[in-house]
Amino acid sequence: MTNFLWQKANTSIDRKIMDFMAGEDIVLDRQLFVYDLRASAAHVKGLSRIKILSRSDADLILSELESLAAQFRSGSFELDERYEDGHSAIETYLTEKLGDLGKRVHTGRSRNDQVLVASRLLLKDRLHDLQMQCLKTASLCIERARETAKVPMPGYTHLQRAVVSSVGMWFASFAESFIDNARLAQDTYAWIDANPLGTAAGFGVNLPLDRQTTTDDLGFDRLQINPIYAQNSRGKFEIQVLTTFAQALADVRRFAWDLSLFSTAEFDFVSMPDRFMTGSSIMPNKRNPDLVELLRAAYPSVQAAIVELQSLLSLPSGYQRDLQNTKPPLLRGLQRGAAVMEIFPDLVASLQFNEDALAAAIEPSMHATDRAMELAASGVPFRNAYQRVMDEPDELGKRTAAHSIRDRVSPGACADLMLDELEERLEALRQ
Amino acid sequence: MTNFLWQKANTSIDRKIMDFMAGEDIVLDRQLFVYDLRASAAHVKGLSRIKILSRSDADLILSELESLAAQFRSGSFELDERYEDGHSAIETYLTEKLGDLGKRVHTGRSRNDQVLVASRLLLKDRLHDLQMQCLKTASLCIERARETAKVPMPGYTHLQRAVVSSVGMWFASFAESFIDNARLAQDTYAWIDANPLGTAAGFGVNLPLDRQTTTDDLGFDRLQINPIYAQNSRGKFEIQVLTTFAQALADVRRFAWDLSLFSTAEFDFVSMPDRFMTGSSIMPNKRNPDLVELLRAAYPSVQAAIVELQSLLSLPSGYQRDLQNTKPPLLRGLQRGAAVMEIFPDLVASLQFNEDALAAAIEPSMHATDRAMELAASGVPFRNAYQRVMDEPDELGKRTAAHSIRDRVSPGACADLMLDELEERLEALRQ
Amino acid sequence: MTNFLWQKANTSIDRKIMDFMAGEDIVLDRQLFVYDLRASAAHVKGLSRIKILSRSDADLILSELESLAAQFRSGSFELDERYEDGHSAIETYLTEKLGDLGKRVHTGRSRNDQVLVASRLLLKDRLHDLQMQCLKTASLCIERARETAKVPMPGYTHLQRAVVSSVGMWFASFAESFIDNARLAQDTYAWIDANPLGTAAGFGVNLPLDRQTTTDDLGFDRLQINPIYAQNSRGKFEIQVLTTFAQALADVRRFAWDLSLFSTAEFDFVSMPDRFMTGSSIMPNKRNPDLVELLRAAYPSVQAAIVELQSLLSLPSGYQRDLQNTKPPLLRGLQRGAAVMEIFPDLVASLQFNEDALAAAIEPSMHATDRAMELAASGVPFRNAYQRVMDEPDELGKRTAAHSIRDRVSPGACADLMLDELEERLEALRQ
Amino acid sequence: MTNFLWQKANTSIDRKIMDFMAGEDIVLDRQLFVYDLRASAAHVKGLSRIKILSRSDADLILSELESLAAQFRSGSFELDERYEDGHSAIETYLTEKLGDLGKRVHTGRSRNDQVLVASRLLLKDRLHDLQMQCLKTASLCIERARETAKVPMPGYTHLQRAVVSSVGMWFASFAESFIDNARLAQDTYAWIDANPLGTAAGFGVNLPLDRQTTTDDLGFDRLQINPIYAQNSRGKFEIQVLTTFAQALADVRRFAWDLSLFSTAEFDFVSMPDRFMTGSSIMPNKRNPDLVELLRAAYPSVQAAIVELQSLLSLPSGYQRDLQNTKPPLLRGLQRGAAVMEIFPDLVASLQFNEDALAAAIEPSMHATDRAMELAASGVPFRNAYQRVMDEPDELGKRTAAHSIRDRVSPGACADLMLDELEERLEALRQ
Repeated sequence: MTNFLWQKANTSIDRKIMDFMAGEDIVLDRQLFVYDLRASAAHVKGLSRIKILSRSDADLILSELESLAAQFRSGSFELDERYEDGHSAIETYLTEKLGDLGKRVHTGRSRNDQVLVASRLLLKDRLHDLQMQCLKTASLCIERARETAKVPMPGYTHLQRAVVSSVGMWFASFAESFIDNARLAQDTYAWIDANPLGTAAGFGVNLPLDRQTTTDDLGFDRLQINPIYAQNSRGKFEIQVLTTFAQALADVRRFAWDLSLFSTAEFDFVSMPDRFMTGSSIMPNKRNPDLVELLRAAYPSVQAAIVELQSLLSLPSGYQRDLQNTKPPLLRGLQRGAAVMEIFPDLVASLQFNEDALAAAIEPSMHATDRAMELAASGVPFRNAYQRVMDEPDELGKRTAAHSIRDRVSPGACADLMLDELEERLEALRQ
Repeated sequence: MTNFLWQKANTSIDRKIMDFMAGEDIVLDRQLFVYDLRASAAHVKGLSRIKILSRSDADLILSELESLAAQFRSGSFELDERYEDGHSAIETYLTEKLGDLGKRVHTGRSRNDQVLVASRLLLKDRLHDLQMQCLKTASLCIERARETAKVPMPGYTHLQRAVVSSVGMWFASFAESFIDNARLAQDTYAWIDANPLGTAAGFGVNLPLDRQTTTDDLGFDRLQINPIYAQNSRGKFEIQVLTTFAQALADVRRFAWDLSLFSTAEFDFVSMPDRFMTGSSIMPNKRNPDLVELLRAAYPSVQAAIVELQSLLSLPSGYQRDLQNTKPPLLRGLQRGAAVMEIFPDLVASLQFNEDALAAAIEPSMHATDRAMELAASGVPFRNAYQRVMDEPDELGKRTAAHSIRDRVSPGACADLMLDELEERLEALRQ
Repeated sequence: MTNFLWQKANTSIDRKIMDFMAGEDIVLDRQLFVYDLRASAAHVKGLSRIKILSRSDADLILSELESLAAQFRSGSFELDERYEDGHSAIETYLTEKLGDLGKRVHTGRSRNDQVLVASRLLLKDRLHDLQMQCLKTASLCIERARETAKVPMPGYTHLQRAVVSSVGMWFASFAESFIDNARLAQDTYAWIDANPLGTAAGFGVNLPLDRQTTTDDLGFDRLQINPIYAQNSRGKFEIQVLTTFAQALADVRRFAWDLSLFSTAEFDFVSMPDRFMTGSSIMPNKRNPDLVELLRAAYPSVQAAIVELQSLLSLPSGYQRDLQNTKPPLLRGLQRGAAVMEIFPDLVASLQFNEDALAAAIEPSMHATDRAMELAASGVPFRNAYQRVMDEPDELGKRTAAHSIRDRVSPGACADLMLDELEERLEALRQ
Repeated sequence: MTNFLWQKANTSIDRKIMDFMAGEDIVLDRQLFVYDLRASAAHVKGLSRIKILSRSDADLILSELESLAAQFRSGSFELDERYEDGHSAIETYLTEKLGDLGKRVHTGRSRNDQVLVASRLLLKDRLHDLQMQCLKTASLCIERARETAKVPMPGYTHLQRAVVSSVGMWFASFAESFIDNARLAQDTYAWIDANPLGTAAGFGVNLPLDRQTTTDDLGFDRLQINPIYAQNSRGKFEIQVLTTFAQALADVRRFAWDLSLFSTAEFDFVSMPDRFMTGSSIMPNKRNPDLVELLRAAYPSVQAAIVELQSLLSLPSGYQRDLQNTKPPLLRGLQRGAAVMEIFPDLVASLQFNEDALAAAIEPSMHATDRAMELAASGVPFRNAYQRVMDEPDELGKRTAAHSIRDRVSPGACADLMLDELEERLEALRQ
């Protein structure tokens, strides 16, 4: 049975209400627990530096924190409904092991800054992973763009065939997009890289906490100075992180939309290995691109998580219990985002293009723009060139997709995908 | 009557349908027009560099573009329903002035990259303004924090009186928040600072456009290389910009919530000048903080704009007409955001605090945490200290708010607001 | 220059702040003005019934209200920035015409219930129009389903060809959907059909207003009894109305998605008249289904309006100025919704199906499910039948689309579209 | 290890990808399982009626379905990762028990209509529960309004004290609101009360399924006729149900906002029993209204679920795997909504009002509107009355809150809360 840190003698506790208030908190805290332990260790070292704890007492606590972390990782310590939350679990564990000394870990801090610092560390890890997966995706897209630079593909606007394009240009578009996504992950990482530990319940404490050393110890770039702001940043930073994930997932969604069309019988441009497909329980003839559809469907989950946080935060300054509800959307959104980004590069790598179908989809009229542009370059006003091309359809029949790709020389277009430049940008983000 | 660039002879045009399709586009383009003109000039110079236009022809066009910009600014040229959109207006104007030469401006570009580059320039300007207003706000908050550093104020959690805090700490929290907002504006500016001009309708052109020089000419930091990506970034970059504004507006919302409570008769902590207030049409006794409420209400408008873009972009690659609908939410969101940030510093500067009411709101029990912390620092386990404080209420009656503020020495708290450090961060963002 | 009802002598008014607070209110009030006038007339009659106004005074006012309505409709009275809002305009007009008597119109009411009642009347009108347009759409879909009941079309799941379907079944799906949408409009109409007039600023008044007769006079079904609830229903009812529009627009979006695919060169199932298409400014060969894309893009606008209201309403009871911001998203959402529903039936009516392309898209494997079902019906366990069908591909080659349509006899399927039943449901909603 | 219904021999299955695709589906299906079993039984009876199954075979299957349901309810059958989903679990179980006969249950249906019908039955149950909880809440509010009809309370607009109001009027406002919410739940129930069973994968089957009898058997009001529409209604109906829950939760949010203010030290109007409060881990003096805050925070969760569905549904007609993702937001939203509505009435019932503090908050100026109204009623133009009241402050000092309550006679206001009428409306919804 849960024991509440704040519980006073003789206070009645209503189980139904407590369950409602706890929600799924303890389960979610499993994701935060190792970060909470790491921050607890830093806090203990900090207390030792200002002599609130003796060196030897601090070492005893640190040793137990390490042991708890090891047990949690191995599965021998389970974070479950015995505890109100992960924070209480740590204190309870230390007190069981060290008696009164264990209770001293909470000196100078509050659950409010505890959850903030643990979440902040988790966010940083997730953003770093996101950056790496975006770079991996971009790198694969560049590689595939090199292979397919000369493979013609219709270029669509309004889903109508417009001009000759290439598979390589299509892959390169996602390379650049995921490079930008990686950069955004890096920027967001830097933006949130501020340490809230030592702000307590939002008003600091009457102890000379050595917050700067704690900041260095935990690997934060800077101090989050103001205690009220530390509270007010809860949700604010989370929204920025989820928005960063959403940017990557929006590109996955677009990629999936393309594949969903390209893999229809009507387009027939691309095929995927069996492991990405499923069958139907009623239709023996079906082979369905379920994975592609589920990748497309991931974006709304993260979008919803963002909306939930945005709306939740219509509050005055300072901690309110509403903020507990930042956890479920945050962790759900991060998990969905991370799962998508882990699977996505594999899909990118495995696509097989049907060059015959792609070639067959190139029609003479798709050379009209090239032709108009040549006329315009030679001095015919573009609008007149535009009219003239329409009046001379035979001119277009003589052209080939290969020529169109070769001639599309504006920087970034089929003849000049600038893959080396993309690679340079990518490498700069690996540092 | 509108003349459509793409209109073929004998094509029937249905007015009702055309009106539906046009929407409010021409009105919105008024905000983009100067940027479109600037980008058009860069394009013309580019065409001249690759000899598509002679130097003298280019100069003629450039001179007319300048003239049009001047007329638009002075109001003598009106962008209205005579034109399908701003892009068409430019071409029509040039053709009227220069005949066939005017038509040549559209060589090597499309309305697709035209609207992209104009929007991109606008976004950069708005982000720069946002950064400046955030810094102005932060600067005022620091100044006010210095004035009010020793003015006690209850610190609330759950809207319940918790511990002694200070007006200075409250102002400093917003200082730090708006410094972070300014930094985010700067980061987002850098992230979108990529030139899409020269990508045409999303597939480049068969002309050796000198995109690098155009990029420099327009003051972009880098080329947006891939033409398909240029199209796919429409909405993607806009969401990031609106999210950046939303971060600032979320803090305005929180500030407004605080003021909304602090200005009730019950709290009575703060008053505002008459010009921020209104009366009631039915209740002669009322004096209402309407401005504060409208500042609070601005956030949902920007949130809605973000949601609209997020949902709209569930599309395959390449231009689709759906993207036209990115304009209204974008421009509406930017306008609302800019209007709020223009007014907000004035409110920050003008608040007057009622020190008597603030002092009266400090109760002895609000010293309990300080006392418990002292006991904990002296070696009593925090949980035990917590119990003991509750058992000795008289201890708390001896304490004063001034002492509590003086003793709250953890970095960032009342006794050490670290305003100089905040000022340094702020100055670093002014560059 | 605007004159404020609540303005006290010597109160400074800051123009910039006033402009920010006014927003686009006066422009939006043009949509509410006729309803405000109608409700004002009812209020005047009510005051006369309880002897606050003499019969003859009431008649004078009523006559001026009618005159103002006529002038507004004809355009000779313009609602513009001279007035703070539509409510003030009415009072100002009456006072100009009738002196002190004009001022008496505001007895017993507030702008708070004035805007509520005017909005409520507008919402009812819009819902009624929506219901009519949904029925018109459904009716056209039934008609088209009758014509095309036997025209084969591939049935897709996962955008993969699954089984034989028919154009008729596709049209009938939208018929049923829009019948449900019409019913929802009717339900929502009934749900909001409650009169808030007479609740003043949210606390009623110390006058024995005859609210029941006013309710009847304005054609409301019931009284909205509680004055606080009247205020709290602002936004609440609006969300429900916008959600109702969104349901219709979600089906338009789906229809548009289908058309967007069906009108690609790859599918080539459907064509639309020229008046629904546009060309490209750069690609002479293009003919683009812009209208379809803009219809698809309308949903996010209404979704955004809903989100804006949902988030805005995180407020305590009673009127707060935040509520003024319910107007822009509401009116924008309604306008977009109404515009879409006015154009949509025309598109439904004009689609032309390419029967050759549809027939060519039917492959033998699409008969596999029918065959498996026959085996299952004859006693083979479905899972075994499923396997057997895959092993006997030749069986499927013998079948035709016409037979498949004829045999699909489960109620609602190709052979039995139940159009008469749909028509009955439709007629029941015309009452 | 999971066995897939559609799995072909020699098809490689990638565990990581399968896990991604399965998501939390099997866990969520636990909520749907009893409904799936009920619908399966109806389907079996239907197959027997059209002689696909003999009466005795049908009885064997029905008996096993009942047995499975009993085991599931008692916990002896666990729905877990052994199965791909609940649908597969049913078929697997039947086949284990009945051999080939068990496999025949899937004749004439697909997982697509299976999940639709099970969800529909669940939605109906949840809406019915919602209606009951809304009525319970409304009934309590009426009761409490009777008790507190004469207890004065400040009426606020803009959170500023405006006029005298009463606790009873405040309670009655929520009574009326929850009556409307109950009616909406009833309307939505009727709107979705359509049977999708028998539509298979969205195109019906070549069997003369007796869908009307199945409809009656399962207690549906009408047939959902068109198979494509049945698929397209997935998400559509769910949005409407969640919007209905959201309406109730929006009122809970507002109620919670009121309590959050009313329970501050500054207002001090209301107190709640200890079981709704918690303490702080750092501040011994705190007693926090956590439950109230968590009730307020529930709305964004349901709002987010709605947004997720709205965005997810940007799809062409027919089943796509994206639709699997309708389940998590739907079930999450319903669970949160149901949990809130189960706890809320208890809170309503237990609030204790501090009559002294309420009385002390009534100031003379709050009688100004009453006074102005009296002058207006006696013939003074309201605007003039408004000015005069301001000039005669002493007049107001003579008035009492009790007189103001007594005189507020407009229907619905303090003197005439019309609780009997509310009770009648409430009773009409109990049927």
